[in-house]
Amino acid sequence: MRTEFEFIQNLKSKYSLSRIGDDCAVMPQDAETDLLVTADMLIEDIDFRLDWTTPEFLGHKSLAVSLSDIAAMGGDPKWSMISIGVPQVLWNSDFIDRFYYGWFALAKRYGVELIGGDISRTDGKLVIDSTVGGEVGKGNAILRSTAKVGDVIFVTGDLGGAAGGLEFLESGHRIHDLSSQKDINLALKQLKPQPQLITAKLLQDMGIVNSMIDLSDGLSSDLGHICRSSGVGARIDEESIPCNTDLDNHFSREQILNMAFDGGEDFELLFTVPVKNISQLNSLNISRIGQITVNVGIIELTTPHGVTILEPKGYRHF
Amino acid sequence: MRTEFEFIQNLKSKYSLSRIGDDCAVMPQDAETDLLVTADMLIEDIDFRLDWTTPEFLGHKSLAVSLSDIAAMGGDPKWSMISIGVPQVLWNSDFIDRFYYGWFALAKRYGVELIGGDISRTDGKLVIDSTVGGEVGKGNAILRSTAKVGDVIFVTGDLGGAAGGLEFLESGHRIHDLSSQKDINLALKQLKPQPQLITAKLLQDMGIVNSMIDLSDGLSSDLGHICRSSGVGARIDEESIPCNTDLDNHFSREQILNMAFDGGEDFELLFTVPVKNISQLNSLNISRIGQITVNVGIIELTTPHGVTILEPKGYRHF
Repeated sequence: MRTEFEFIQNLKSKYSLSRIGDDCAVMPQDAETDLLVTADMLIEDIDFRLDWTTPEFLGHKSLAVSLSDIAAMGGDPKWSMISIGVPQVLWNSDFIDRFYYGWFALAKRYGVELIGGDISRTDGKLVIDSTVGGEVGKGNAILRSTAKVGDVIFVTGDLGGAAGGLEFLESGHRIHDLSSQKDINLALKQLKPQPQLITAKLLQDMGIVNSMIDLSDGLSSDLGHICRSSGVGARIDEESIPCNTDLDNHFSREQILNMAFDGGEDFELLFTVPVKNISQLNSLNISRIGQITVNVGIIELTTPHGVTILEPKGYRHF
Repeated sequence: MRTEFEFIQNLKSKYSLSRIGDDCAVMPQDAETDLLVTADMLIEDIDFRLDWTTPEFLGHKSLAVSLSDIAAMGGDPKWSMISIGVPQVLWNSDFIDRFYYGWFALAKRYGVELIGGDISRTDGKLVIDSTVGGEVGKGNAILRSTAKVGDVIFVTGDLGGAAGGLEFLESGHRIHDLSSQKDINLALKQLKPQPQLITAKLLQDMGIVNSMIDLSDGLSSDLGHICRSSGVGARIDEESIPCNTDLDNHFSREQILNMAFDGGEDFELLFTVPVKNISQLNSLNISRIGQITVNVGIIELTTPHGVTILEPKGYRHF
């Protein structure tokens, strides 16, 4: 059975779709500006569980995942459309008011305007489709397809927290029952992710980043996306991966590394910079994790026990 | 229980959303051009039934409904994002290839480029969200909120066919079992609607239209949208309504009128033009159905038996 990635690749080639394949589509807007557009669909019981989250968190996350795509291109988000398919029982409650309350709280922080969308009833699961438009200087969108051999690989923040939060929720914990601040932080990493727009803007202004992607599928998959679309490989160092330290109380080192490599949904940024420019990055909360190599599509992982190959194990729908 | 229209009205005022309320949002693009954006969600068993349609028709209709919104603003469609939530059983079939085949056949006709979207698995019903972006000359988007008292009201094509096609399908007929061309035409009106982009472009170029909307909810509702948002009323003449003649074999005059007034999904254009300009419209396949009045929000209907008030009875989700 084909994966959704294979299907999209096939569609691109069959219909000659040149704008598909990055975090956002890039379209000319005016003489100085390109338009960025991205869409993300969130479906109940696939992407979220109503009994694990709150309507406010879900409104926040619906926007955050798309803002993260704008960040990954080094852009500024401007507007959004929300389409939502709502079961009658939720329509009859305060769900939708609370959903938009959470959505607008995040939108206001980044100056995003709601310009439209659609509201439909559904007999099935709650479904949300978030479209966000943004702007970037003409020709300045940071692509995943332009990593260069020798580039140093960095990630923002820390990794694995969203996967740890998910495991917490799957094991029956609920955020309002948690007492430790570290545990609450983990749950929030999953339920209320923070898009890295400010760091992305700093990186864009520096003009030194060769390629960038957001960590939505997981480091192993997302670094694989950069490598395949850039026609390069990568070598990363296990010891340098900035694992979320809130995971330490509950999980083994091996579990934590798996979460950091394959967990997805951390919505941090993964980017590559030429060696000569890396001194400019000193002030940022980022970690150097490896280097781009010539081994097309291969990610080598240096561990204390030797070098292995890191296979993409991020989330797949099909 | 509030309707979706009431909810959206409340959202607009609570969060000061000035761009919501027309067929598309209008955003500045460059010195000469405005950007139009619209989104439409189609949900299985609410907006379509898989056993009534084909994957190709559904792909066509998913795009057509959004193109109709671009037409209603007098714009040119340019790009689209499709997000689709697919049950595993459909993913395992040829459904999605055939869906995109139908989508691209229509997209090619109007020069629309697929620039992105999302594909997700769902445990629930098939769901499609279509976002389309288009262009219109700066300040030239034709709004629903700018009808003027005295304007003559027109519709393109004929009305009620989509509702008749729906009734056909609901009563157990399937398009491939129909033998009469008239009956096939009715089913196609429902399953494969044609957006009126060419007529819309002609009207835009004439520069004489004061207000326009597409007939998606039904004439009684959509004329009501024009009246309320323009702060005007309307008087229409029952005898002048261009009912679809393919309905005649199966339905009474009363049934046909109900379909024309309240059926929705004909995706024809409803527009208003100052009296002094109507002679310019002679070459178009349109019908003059009434006039804009001062009676804010009231639609008077002249019938052979006297004047009644036409209440909006188009489709509501909630």
